[in-house]
Amino acid sequence: MARAAFYERDRVIRVGDVGAQAPGPGEVQVKIAYAGICGTDLHIYHGVMDQRVAASQIMGHEVSGVVSALGEGVVGIEVGQMVTVMPLDPCNACPACAAGHSHICLNLKFLGIDTQGGFQSTWTVPAHTIHSLPETMSLKRAALIEPLAVACHDVRLGEAKAGEFVVVLGGGPIGALVGLVAQNEGADVVVSEINPDRIRIGRELGLEVVDPNEVDLAALANERTGGAGADVVFEVTGSAAGAATMTQLPRTRGRIVVVAIFGHVPPVDLKAILWREMRLCGTRVYERQDFEKAIELASGDALPLDLLITGTYPLERLKDALTELEQGGNAMKILIDVAA
Amino acid sequence: MARAAFYERDRVIRVGDVGAQAPGPGEVQVKIAYAGICGTDLHIYHGVMDQRVAASQIMGHEVSGVVSALGEGVVGIEVGQMVTVMPLDPCNACPACAAGHSHICLNLKFLGIDTQGGFQSTWTVPAHTIHSLPETMSLKRAALIEPLAVACHDVRLGEAKAGEFVVVLGGGPIGALVGLVAQNEGADVVVSEINPDRIRIGRELGLEVVDPNEVDLAALANERTGGAGADVVFEVTGSAAGAATMTQLPRTRGRIVVVAIFGHVPPVDLKAILWREMRLCGTRVYERQDFEKAIELASGDALPLDLLITGTYPLERLKDALTELEQGGNAMKILIDVAA
Repeated sequence: MARAAFYERDRVIRVGDVGAQAPGPGEVQVKIAYAGICGTDLHIYHGVMDQRVAASQIMGHEVSGVVSALGEGVVGIEVGQMVTVMPLDPCNACPACAAGHSHICLNLKFLGIDTQGGFQSTWTVPAHTIHSLPETMSLKRAALIEPLAVACHDVRLGEAKAGEFVVVLGGGPIGALVGLVAQNEGADVVVSEINPDRIRIGRELGLEVVDPNEVDLAALANERTGGAGADVVFEVTGSAAGAATMTQLPRTRGRIVVVAIFGHVPPVDLKAILWREMRLCGTRVYERQDFEKAIELASGDALPLDLLITGTYPLERLKDALTELEQGGNAMKILIDVAA
Repeated sequence: MARAAFYERDRVIRVGDVGAQAPGPGEVQVKIAYAGICGTDLHIYHGVMDQRVAASQIMGHEVSGVVSALGEGVVGIEVGQMVTVMPLDPCNACPACAAGHSHICLNLKFLGIDTQGGFQSTWTVPAHTIHSLPETMSLKRAALIEPLAVACHDVRLGEAKAGEFVVVLGGGPIGALVGLVAQNEGADVVVSEINPDRIRIGRELGLEVVDPNEVDLAALANERTGGAGADVVFEVTGSAAGAATMTQLPRTRGRIVVVAIFGHVPPVDLKAILWREMRLCGTRVYERQDFEKAIELASGDALPLDLLITGTYPLERLKDALTELEQGGNAMKILIDVAA
């Protein structure tokens, strides 16, 4: 029998049977292997997104699995194929879609948030969201492709290049991935993180991680760049401290990339941005090319992605996994082994 | 005898004799015709820049005039030539200069702020700051080239193009010039301004000006763009209200250009910037190409620049001119007729 984990209300998860949803026209049913827990899932679990999510919400959007059934009219995808899902379903009609920005469609359905998600035995999704994987790929590692695609998008839009000095504020899962991707592009990367566990894990990943309570980041950026300042700063903390620091580090015409979703409206030093003619951009999710880049990176050995996975729980224990995540920095990426 | 107006201390101006400074090697002496009053001059007059300006400061950096003497080694400039001054003196040695951003040099000397300025009979400046003017040009109009170059820089960095919908927040002298330059590029421009005098003057200039207390700017931007939002927003108010509005108007991947120098650190909705992947950039002064573009624009009839000049005072009455400016919106650009 197919099983699913349902978010019922603030901190209440129910695991129970669910009817496997047969794929309709243009849809694909995926037997889920692994599904990662995203920070957004944690927000939903804490009840702060109740206005957006439906009752008995099945969360989860970072998945790997195998195609188990095809709906009418689906071509180019076969049952048995290893796949991942790019969980964006745009309307293809709004001005954002018309302008080529369908990944941030004004009516975007984010699968697993605005629709039922991947914390269930089989997940039925639009065929256009399916990306096939190399057969040699570990399905565990493949569950990291979605967050890795976020990092690929951030680094691409931030234009971090070989030889540039890059500071990543925040060394959680996304911050660490941004650091790894930028480093893989040849940039000289420093990650700023205050949590001792995350500092340790970041260093195990091969990143240079400093504690901003011990190191003067602005002085460090100047030291590394002959007094110029950082080429790119990624803000991945979502904190007032991060918003204050991000404008203190860049060089003239340096870039700031806002990756974190701020839960408040922080003070931002617009005079500092003006004075050095900095450029700041917001980045959200990913585009198709970022997803493909993430699959390519995850297929190879360039990034030590497996070290990011700090825990794996069966579906029945989703609540324990969420509890571990909310307790702090010791956990980075936790996967749900849905088939276990 | 040469005369000059000296800023002595908060709201104290002294007008007196001054020895004409003979040009040293590489310098040019300009007999000043007109010198505009900038918002920065008003800040100096109010004593808020006393840490930066020297005692007995001669302010003024928006000038037109005629070359009156040449220092040793100056070539390509002739006595009697009509000129204006691009008042930036970079160090040519710092990382910003090395990166090609000498206009925002880390050790920039801004002539008339960090050195003595143009509110005097003759002004001696580095030869590299001299730009010659067409002989048919009005010297009065030529005193607007410097602020016009600011607007050219802002519009160029904001990439406002023909057919785009542009909102300018703030209809003072710089906001109006940004609107005129963007309109001249073919953009559809709306200026937002609350001061009734500035609304009237903006309309006389041929701009569409709305009062944001009467018009919902976000609704207007959507209405004009089929629900997409503004292509570019210029923030020229330096106010918390402007900083709040600037993130409410742009389309996905729309641009925000921060033109105003904020005297405080305002809250900025970074989540809104992220959600639509907006791009925000700070812009400061101008580069050589902007100055040349401003001279070209001021030489022709495309922009009704003369209407921006709302008053002209002799040098002896600089204090009266500053008093008029600080009293409100009725005044836009006030010129000092230095030779009067």
